[in-house]
Amino acid sequence: MFHLPLHRLLLASLTLAPLAHTARADEGMWLFNRPPLAEMKARHGFEASPEWMEHVQRSCVRVSTGGSGSIVSADGLVMTNHHVASDILEKLSSKESNLIEKGFWAAGLADELKCPDLHLDVLWTITDVTERIEGAAKGLGTADAGAAKRKLQTQIEDEAKRARGLHCEVVTLYQGGRYHLYEYKRFEDVRLVFAPETQSAFYGGDNDNFEYPRYCLDATFFRIYENGAPLKAENFLRWSANGAADGELCFVAGHPGSTQRLNTVAHLEYLRDAAVPRATTRLMRAEVWLQTFSGRSTENARIARGDLFSVQNSRKVYVGRLSGLLDPQLFAEKRTAEEKLRAAVEANPEWKAKWGDAWEKIAQGQATAALLAPRYGAVGQGALSLGTETFTFAKDILRLADELGKPSGERLREYGDAGLDALKNAIYSPAPLYPEFEMMRLEMALSGMAETLGGNDPIVLAALAGRAPRARAEECVKGTKLFDIAERKRLVEGGKAVVDACKDPMIALARALDPFSRQMRKKWEDEVTSVERENYAKIAAARFAVEGEKVYPDATFTLRLSYGTVKGYEHNGAPVKPFTTFGGAYAKAEERATEAAYALPKSWLDAKSVLELETPFHFVSTHDIIGGNSGSPVFNRAGEVVGLIFDGNIQSLVGNYGYSDVQSRSVSVDSRGILESLRNVYKTNRLVTELEGSRAKR
Amino acid sequence: MFHLPLHRLLLASLTLAPLAHTARADEGMWLFNRPPLAEMKARHGFEASPEWMEHVQRSCVRVSTGGSGSIVSADGLVMTNHHVASDILEKLSSKESNLIEKGFWAAGLADELKCPDLHLDVLWTITDVTERIEGAAKGLGTADAGAAKRKLQTQIEDEAKRARGLHCEVVTLYQGGRYHLYEYKRFEDVRLVFAPETQSAFYGGDNDNFEYPRYCLDATFFRIYENGAPLKAENFLRWSANGAADGELCFVAGHPGSTQRLNTVAHLEYLRDAAVPRATTRLMRAEVWLQTFSGRSTENARIARGDLFSVQNSRKVYVGRLSGLLDPQLFAEKRTAEEKLRAAVEANPEWKAKWGDAWEKIAQGQATAALLAPRYGAVGQGALSLGTETFTFAKDILRLADELGKPSGERLREYGDAGLDALKNAIYSPAPLYPEFEMMRLEMALSGMAETLGGNDPIVLAALAGRAPRARAEECVKGTKLFDIAERKRLVEGGKAVVDACKDPMIALARALDPFSRQMRKKWEDEVTSVERENYAKIAAARFAVEGEKVYPDATFTLRLSYGTVKGYEHNGAPVKPFTTFGGAYAKAEERATEAAYALPKSWLDAKSVLELETPFHFVSTHDIIGGNSGSPVFNRAGEVVGLIFDGNIQSLVGNYGYSDVQSRSVSVDSRGILESLRNVYKTNRLVTELEGSRAKR
Repeated sequence: MFHLPLHRLLLASLTLAPLAHTARADEGMWLFNRPPLAEMKARHGFEASPEWMEHVQRSCVRVSTGGSGSIVSADGLVMTNHHVASDILEKLSSKESNLIEKGFWAAGLADELKCPDLHLDVLWTITDVTERIEGAAKGLGTADAGAAKRKLQTQIEDEAKRARGLHCEVVTLYQGGRYHLYEYKRFEDVRLVFAPETQSAFYGGDNDNFEYPRYCLDATFFRIYENGAPLKAENFLRWSANGAADGELCFVAGHPGSTQRLNTVAHLEYLRDAAVPRATTRLMRAEVWLQTFSGRSTENARIARGDLFSVQNSRKVYVGRLSGLLDPQLFAEKRTAEEKLRAAVEANPEWKAKWGDAWEKIAQGQATAALLAPRYGAVGQGALSLGTETFTFAKDILRLADELGKPSGERLREYGDAGLDALKNAIYSPAPLYPEFEMMRLEMALSGMAETLGGNDPIVLAALAGRAPRARAEECVKGTKLFDIAERKRLVEGGKAVVDACKDPMIALARALDPFSRQMRKKWEDEVTSVERENYAKIAAARFAVEGEKVYPDATFTLRLSYGTVKGYEHNGAPVKPFTTFGGAYAKAEERATEAAYALPKSWLDAKSVLELETPFHFVSTHDIIGGNSGSPVFNRAGEVVGLIFDGNIQSLVGNYGYSDVQSRSVSVDSRGILESLRNVYKTNRLVTELEGSRAKR
Repeated sequence: MFHLPLHRLLLASLTLAPLAHTARADEGMWLFNRPPLAEMKARHGFEASPEWMEHVQRSCVRVSTGGSGSIVSADGLVMTNHHVASDILEKLSSKESNLIEKGFWAAGLADELKCPDLHLDVLWTITDVTERIEGAAKGLGTADAGAAKRKLQTQIEDEAKRARGLHCEVVTLYQGGRYHLYEYKRFEDVRLVFAPETQSAFYGGDNDNFEYPRYCLDATFFRIYENGAPLKAENFLRWSANGAADGELCFVAGHPGSTQRLNTVAHLEYLRDAAVPRATTRLMRAEVWLQTFSGRSTENARIARGDLFSVQNSRKVYVGRLSGLLDPQLFAEKRTAEEKLRAAVEANPEWKAKWGDAWEKIAQGQATAALLAPRYGAVGQGALSLGTETFTFAKDILRLADELGKPSGERLREYGDAGLDALKNAIYSPAPLYPEFEMMRLEMALSGMAETLGGNDPIVLAALAGRAPRARAEECVKGTKLFDIAERKRLVEGGKAVVDACKDPMIALARALDPFSRQMRKKWEDEVTSVERENYAKIAAARFAVEGEKVYPDATFTLRLSYGTVKGYEHNGAPVKPFTTFGGAYAKAEERATEAAYALPKSWLDAKSVLELETPFHFVSTHDIIGGNSGSPVFNRAGEVVGLIFDGNIQSLVGNYGYSDVQSRSVSVDSRGILESLRNVYKTNRLVTELEGSRAKR
């Protein structure tokens, strides 16, 4: 599934480089303030007006669970994927009422369920602040320049928030080539309207993930509320009357998480030889731990389901990335492109003096990264994470107490004023917590730390405090009071004196690891990140000078526009048709009758006789997307919804490093399949009426 | 399950050290030529006569799939575990006839099924050859001494085989302190008599593995044939009339695989910080690859089942070992014992001069091991393995062609004359091969090599030959003719000229990796193994001088005797009873009704009304065993079978590093449960009569 991998932080240095080539075919994840107007016109005869762009931009949402979505009715109805929503569905579930298993439907407005820990962001404005950021770093050495830029980013966010009250983020583009201020309308009252059962939403399970053809209803609807009532949406995407046709031009607007398409060769080698293998191995390890935990009881399986799904999904993504990186062909192409650009820089004395050393400097930074990564990763890459809810509370409570004593710009970036509300909401989350699960995850993290660094490393000695990982995890989880929201509030509101006096074992664990985490973070920022920022900025400048600025930056989990067409492909010499149908789902269930993953739920079996079996269910298209795009709307020239992105095929997984339209495809649920199933499988009349009411009249 | 982990070779240097303490409680895996006569008499009043020892020794078998077994009738009937036999059951299965799923019962002697790739070894004689081996190394430097000893080991094996025609192995004990020549009667005509369905044999699946209480019939019966007829066994264990009672003294004779109970502290740190974490991670990685492959179809799941089971089993073992190694208490005890012994050596000038440097030398060897291990492991630790059947054929064909040109003692150890017959049998194995599975495993190995060493390592470049791992695996598997037994024979019989001229891509892959593998092996043998042999021999001598020679050597997958009693234990403060019953199995199935792993097979459901539900099914005992002991008989003072070892509980998994009788327990199927299920669930009257016929009359 193409949501943002939970574990993207595992990759220590997903740096974002400018493009080595101009876009080809329907390539590109384009900025909304730099849309590919000329390319769309030349390739497809489509002219996007500024009004069209703004309407689309303000109809899209970024989902805080790591995905995308869109507003699809005048009453703030939001469409996204079930797998983007599933974290929330789990938090709304209990042993007795399992929404993951059974699905959910709010028969009336009053039945819509308020969601914990969920907010939706609508991108309102973008401002280029590059000159201001670069100005702050003039004349400083690499590490100081990096620190000055980070400080100014926080200041700009704080200023903007004070000025207009929106949620503000300064986004680093081209890995340091540009800085844009993004201001979002943030919605925190979001309610669940409809979700299918997982057996339909994730039909085919991990086996079928990233495969095609597919037959899963990976869709969920939320509603945005404002002042206790449904949002009166000025911008939303209407439902298409007819869906998309084979070969039709359409668009995807969403939040691709990260790409590394034009990292330097040395940087890609670091990813190939260190970062990606390490991340893949860690995911596989987590998968086995989670499966072992899940096997112990049905309730354990319910509790761990979300983590397991997320880890399995990311594991497939990383295996795909690895296989891309291990293809010598990829490196041959990257090497040729890099040599060409470097030759152009070498040939111009002024350019050579300004930018000529950038590649070598980045290579040095990567060599440093390879040395630092195990210890940097062990303490959560400076974010201090052990993959455990109560430890995360402890860490944030501890750091908040320390950081709030400093001016916003001097703090660790994530404790700046602009993000404080969201952070406190997270600490006060009412979502259910499970001690046994906390213990397992903490043991997994502590043991992993020792496995990576060895039992005599000072970080490990501090973490284990003389105990084996399991004993230490039990001590912390059984002893902590952080399961209690009131206790978390008491500590946050009490501030530094109260936190310093707190003897909670989970806080103590965070306290023991905090100095290592801060130290490794500073080292990494000074010797890796700042080096990358400075030198990728040079490469970006070189690229712009040689090729012009008509390139898109690598993905940054910010809103991007992709264009492409509905289109089949060939696999093992046989054609794969662009559309699947409801009939295909029933055929598949018969073909794999002995396997639980392919059993259709009762709702679908019951509805078979009334369904139009020729209804299009899924389609594939050439859009250039990646993890984070899950839940993105697919819409036509008129801005009408024709589909819902939820996945890419297996061939698309090398997309981190480059785009191809030969076999790589995006996978969407067809708007007609969504509507027909809402009507005849789930009988959600109110929702059908709302979507039909928004439908464009032709 | 306590069979020998398939992947034990993953552990680069499981060195075997002499004991730091004298045996306590019922500790010990005792040599048959040094039985613990005094201990058994003192603790349990039992006197084992030489005749008793020899009778037991010659009633036991070592199973070539990596387990233990015993002869239990005068007609050569052999009892072992289903999970020890399952590799053979898979080789006897096809898509159409799945013995793993359905089980097997030979109604008449003529129906007994000849097993491919299986031989059973009965230990006939043991001779101490330490003086001869040590004499060969006199005055040589460390590496040369190591090489001279290895060469002489092969010569002694060849001589003995020529002299008496038995299968001969020189066993290194006390990691170099002693060398014993073991001569075995080898039986290669072994036929399958009975196996239950896996749903009964592995009831509870991976969840319940290494847990207790348990309810699985992990038993299988083979029969040894000689000259086409059932073996007339001179030695066999009779079936007990009454089984074992709570608290009763009994014995286990079997083949524990390896322990590291008294490695030096530095050596244990290497295991904790490098070897065991790396092996654990590789197992988890393999588990995920195998599960992904299995998920694609029911047939894939059938094909991969054995590998998946073996990997999951080993993973549980390694997680258990890791948690033991990560317990600071363990290291504190080891450190105290080591300091005590070193102090005794330091206090005696003669001892100090002879042995005083041994600990430091081993620490240096371990530091070298940590550096060499990734590359040494990548090429199969000098054995050159990529975990793929056809590659293994290719490697053995290639190496045989090279090695047979040298005298036996000059060859790589495993190509010495004494082992040639077994090696050729393995190359000519008629067991089924599956191209898709070969491709997956080869891709997994090639990718793993690149993930570990990086894409620019010469080993990786040689292995991939300019292709991505998947493409390279396809090229080799699709292009090789080694699926054909006749082609394998042609190459082996053709010898070096024919093999040199062979362009088979799998042979070419082996040829590309062979020099690296030999080079790494020589480096490892010279700088790690030889250092360990030399210096552990010193430590052994020091130990014998200080504490006397009344210690057992670490396990070496050779026959050992353990004694102990049937005994429950406490877990989380609650008592765990020593016996389970058939009734417990039905209760468990009800309790976990929604989980496939806990469904009882039809045979058991059908038999419920005729079964005596109070029949003992399993029991736990204090015997000191470890992986490789699976299938060992448990017998009483009279030498009568009362149980069948198949597992240890989760608390026993730290047994590699030390023994405790507080919670650690061996788990056996009760002889009464076996007989009752054969009679009333499987209705195998012929087998029941044979076992009852052998039963001791009381």
